Amino acid sequence: MIPKPIEIETPALVIREEVVLKNIDRFQRHCDDNGLKLRPHVKTHKCVHFAKAQIAAGATGITCQKIGEAEVMVDGGIHDILIAYNILGDGKLGRLRSLAERTKALSGVADNDVVVDGLSRAFETASRPLLVLVECDTGGHRCGVQSPERAIALSRRISALPGIRFGGLMTYPAIGGQRDVLAFMTLAKAGIEECGIACPVVSSGGSPDMWHARSHGGTITEYRAGTYVFNDRSLVERATCAWEDCAGRIVATVVSVPSAGKAIIDAGSKILTTDLLGLDGFGHVVGHPHARIAGLNEEHGTILCGPDEGLEVGEQVNIVPNHICVVANMVDSAWLESGTGEISLLKIDARGKLS
Amino acid sequence: MIPKPIEIETPALVIREEVVLKNIDRFQRHCDDNGLKLRPHVKTHKCVHFAKAQIAAGATGITCQKIGEAEVMVDGGIHDILIAYNILGDGKLGRLRSLAERTKALSGVADNDVVVDGLSRAFETASRPLLVLVECDTGGHRCGVQSPERAIALSRRISALPGIRFGGLMTYPAIGGQRDVLAFMTLAKAGIEECGIACPVVSSGGSPDMWHARSHGGTITEYRAGTYVFNDRSLVERATCAWEDCAGRIVATVVSVPSAGKAIIDAGSKILTTDLLGLDGFGHVVGHPHARIAGLNEEHGTILCGPDEGLEVGEQVNIVPNHICVVANMVDSAWLESGTGEISLLKIDARGKLS
Repeated sequence: MIPKPIEIETPALVIREEVVLKNIDRFQRHCDDNGLKLRPHVKTHKCVHFAKAQIAAGATGITCQKIGEAEVMVDGGIHDILIAYNILGDGKLGRLRSLAERTKALSGVADNDVVVDGLSRAFETASRPLLVLVECDTGGHRCGVQSPERAIALSRRISALPGIRFGGLMTYPAIGGQRDVLAFMTLAKAGIEECGIACPVVSSGGSPDMWHARSHGGTITEYRAGTYVFNDRSLVERATCAWEDCAGRIVATVVSVPSAGKAIIDAGSKILTTDLLGLDGFGHVVGHPHARIAGLNEEHGTILCGPDEGLEVGEQVNIVPNHICVVANMVDSAWLESGTGEISLLKIDARGKLS
Repeated sequence: MIPKPIEIETPALVIREEVVLKNIDRFQRHCDDNGLKLRPHVKTHKCVHFAKAQIAAGATGITCQKIGEAEVMVDGGIHDILIAYNILGDGKLGRLRSLAERTKALSGVADNDVVVDGLSRAFETASRPLLVLVECDTGGHRCGVQSPERAIALSRRISALPGIRFGGLMTYPAIGGQRDVLAFMTLAKAGIEECGIACPVVSSGGSPDMWHARSHGGTITEYRAGTYVFNDRSLVERATCAWEDCAGRIVATVVSVPSAGKAIIDAGSKILTTDLLGLDGFGHVVGHPHARIAGLNEEHGTILCGPDEGLEVGEQVNIVPNHICVVANMVDSAWLESGTGEISLLKIDARGKLS
């Protein structure tokens, strides 16, 4: 008996597993070939299933941004986790300590004294010290100490306090900023080692520049990337990947063709999000190169195209999102499509784990 | 014994119930005073709790955009629902019919023949016909028939088909487009009635223009508004409400002050969303009029402000979001703050109900 095909009710996120596995494998090989450990960021897929695939392919562990994400991953059996985020507040520090007690290797970061002191207090009576990396602003202009001197000073503070141990340096670089990373990290690492403090890890990251990731003679030890697992329109536009490397697509239905050259789809900002990442339009309509997703309301997307584009009411379209990391976070579950076309539901385990 | 205060782990959505109830009551009175039935759109709050408060205040029923939202509301005891969206596909039509069977008053909309014919087929053997309103594009340029003539033609098609019954006209107008609504609806309604078809409902909507909502001598019978329940920065900027009418705030923590005049908060695009709605910056920081949320990453917000603004690591800030409807959809639950300052968790029942 042939099973009835599953009807995908739109809008929905469909993830092609073969493409995911290819993306994981290819970048793992790049890291292996360039003397880098790979610590993928799970903020893109938020699924234990894919975190395990990354570990199985050779990743050294994973990166999380939020304790809630890490809790889900530990529950799922992942035990080497960097939480690459300043943790503050009694509630979160308590959760972090509980998590450390049931994880083989948990590490955190800090870029200021308040965070360092809080981590020390929280782990003062713990059975093992928490490894803390110093976050450095190498040009990304987000968090991070502003100079190698500040990195050295903070590493000394970490080394001097109870409950925590200096674990190394990390940065989220600007796009195109690999040279700045190297300059900053070389100085900071040398200064820290001059103080007699070991600096075992220097962690860089970012999917846009991932194919340029190098260890530079051992200065950079680790690379964190998230988006590469699925890829998206922003990475295609940056020539980091090709359309066929994009594993995640939003399937939407044309619900109205109010006038010639205009189609309304049932995917709006509550699934595609309004993230533009500098691009024109809210996604790429596969197979319709002249179609432009010109506007989004919460539950409507407006596609403008030539009248000959032939979008008809009831037709399904596939959209490669501008920014897959925020899109995957909109759905409680996605459809996982196997290489032979079968689909099954996949829970987005850490969706909405905001804190 | 004084109970320990609950620590809000950030980022979090906090909703002030007193403000919500005031917002609900005030607009209900406006509708009552102006001969309009109010059918609030639940896409903003997605909570049975608030839908019931709206009904209790006098609303005639509710509006949903997705069948999934309506299913949650029916499960919660709400029984008069308009699904203001073209429904297509066997799966959804089946769900719609099941829902109609356990609802007192369910109605839908259509703006084209394909949708009308699908609804008719799905309800041909139902115990009661489905009421179908014709969606009209009165200038909002989203879905909707493009002329009163097309509205008349579609109402005739609905009236002629089995399983469905013509229920009236609906529109989502352009901001400032109330006059266009009246012109379109007057012509369409007259033409439909000339065909011997009753047109009991003419439904308009939109929070931005809600204080201008009028029945115009009975031509407009019903008004749909969603955002008014919480209000947001976009409605303050349009002078539709004041800051103190904004019931929903994101509480975030300053996690880093990497340099003078710059603070990084733990609320990024995965809670605030990148919706700008034409505004500058990604939200209003309460009590910091010179602070500007200049950029968002997924889990980081960058606040730029004068160095004297005094934002310090560990400090909590309150943010009125640009667009509360998409923000409430990012969280599985919110904190509900009572008039006396107690807080309790409130599930966002229909969060992520995308189809």
